[in-house]
Amino acid sequence: MVSLVLPQKDDHLTILVPQIHTCFTYYANPEFLENDFRLKPDLDGLGALGDAGWYCIRAILWAADYQLPSSVTALPGSVFNRGGVILSCGAALEWADGKVATFHCSVLSNLTMEITAIGTKGSLQLLDFVIPFRPNSASYSTASGSQLEELSTGWKAKASEHSVLNDLPQEALMMREFAGLVAGIKLNGKQPESKWPAMTRKTQLVVDAVKTSIEKGCQAVEVSS
Amino acid sequence: MVSLVLPQKDDHLTILVPQIHTCFTYYANPEFLENDFRLKPDLDGLGALGDAGWYCIRAILWAADYQLPSSVTALPGSVFNRGGVILSCGAALEWADGKVATFHCSVLSNLTMEITAIGTKGSLQLLDFVIPFRPNSASYSTASGSQLEELSTGWKAKASEHSVLNDLPQEALMMREFAGLVAGIKLNGKQPESKWPAMTRKTQLVVDAVKTSIEKGCQAVEVSS
Repeated sequence: MVSLVLPQKDDHLTILVPQIHTCFTYYANPEFLENDFRLKPDLDGLGALGDAGWYCIRAILWAADYQLPSSVTALPGSVFNRGGVILSCGAALEWADGKVATFHCSVLSNLTMEITAIGTKGSLQLLDFVIPFRPNSASYSTASGSQLEELSTGWKAKASEHSVLNDLPQEALMMREFAGLVAGIKLNGKQPESKWPAMTRKTQLVVDAVKTSIEKGCQAVEVSS
Repeated sequence: MVSLVLPQKDDHLTILVPQIHTCFTYYANPEFLENDFRLKPDLDGLGALGDAGWYCIRAILWAADYQLPSSVTALPGSVFNRGGVILSCGAALEWADGKVATFHCSVLSNLTMEITAIGTKGSLQLLDFVIPFRPNSASYSTASGSQLEELSTGWKAKASEHSVLNDLPQEALMMREFAGLVAGIKLNGKQPESKWPAMTRKTQLVVDAVKTSIEKGCQAVEVSS
């Protein structure tokens, strides 16, 4: 546990103690619960953590500029199937600079996919970060310097909505990016792009640390790159 | 830690494993941080937990039908001032039936006050649960049986928005309720209403358990009524 002490007034609090919470849950039908490879101990033994939790962790890393947390602590309340595969779990992530994050993932709950990121002077919310509500646009809301009205009777301003329009859905954009990278190597002599495997590896490191923490009864587990 | 095993198909999963997350954060100015009674160890030694965290815990208890959790585990990353008073913290709550909840409270972050409650077949979101955006109305959104469209290109339906209109702001409603209870006792021979002190006492029990867990380095602390 990092216990920060409030800096002197002159220090900059601006970038201290942001907090991030993400969730990705969906309600799997009985056939999925019984037969899907994601929930078989001899196939994808990571279950809900490897499927839904992966996205939660990636979203947290995105909000943390892809800095790895220093440690990960599973939250109590993990649920397993008869094969010992995770159906629902969560964890708290902690960075040396004071950032903290939590996530919750499950295949036993109604469909949700949310990011709430709270900085010292602003906050961000996104309700459909895995699959957007509509294929060609995605919205998020931001608030900055939010304040209550005098006498605390309401808020001075609500969050602002922002929409991002795309000509293609995200899956097509992913394939375009992938094809472009392959073409760059095959046709233009470029080196493999290191960005995507670096992001993927960091995500997997955190996924593995959460699994280890669950196995150790929610003990904190250090994350090392 | 409760480790639930998936029931047989015929069992009812409906009420299992709901998850609740709440946050209440605000950005205190330097005068508040230096002088407010909430942050003085010899006045309100509970700091952000006793102020903002109180509301988070009450909201969680509300979503849990005021059942006390069986245990509380503080999250890593608590922040203290020079007097040792909490400026930012969070905790995970766990119930014997599999419910889990997390909250985050802080006086060092942008103003947010959110509830996300995820049940097996529905979810609820509320963005202004302490002070509503507008004094005479409050909104929340619900979703039920949320599903993706075929090929996962979008969502079949977005959440529904609901507005509650009041003739008076919540502070006036609270005073009307209080005056009515006093009048009931003084003029109509009624007994004191047990609902409010019961809710308050449960909230305080959880607040105290979180404080104890923080002091014990994020060990789980049992909550007993």
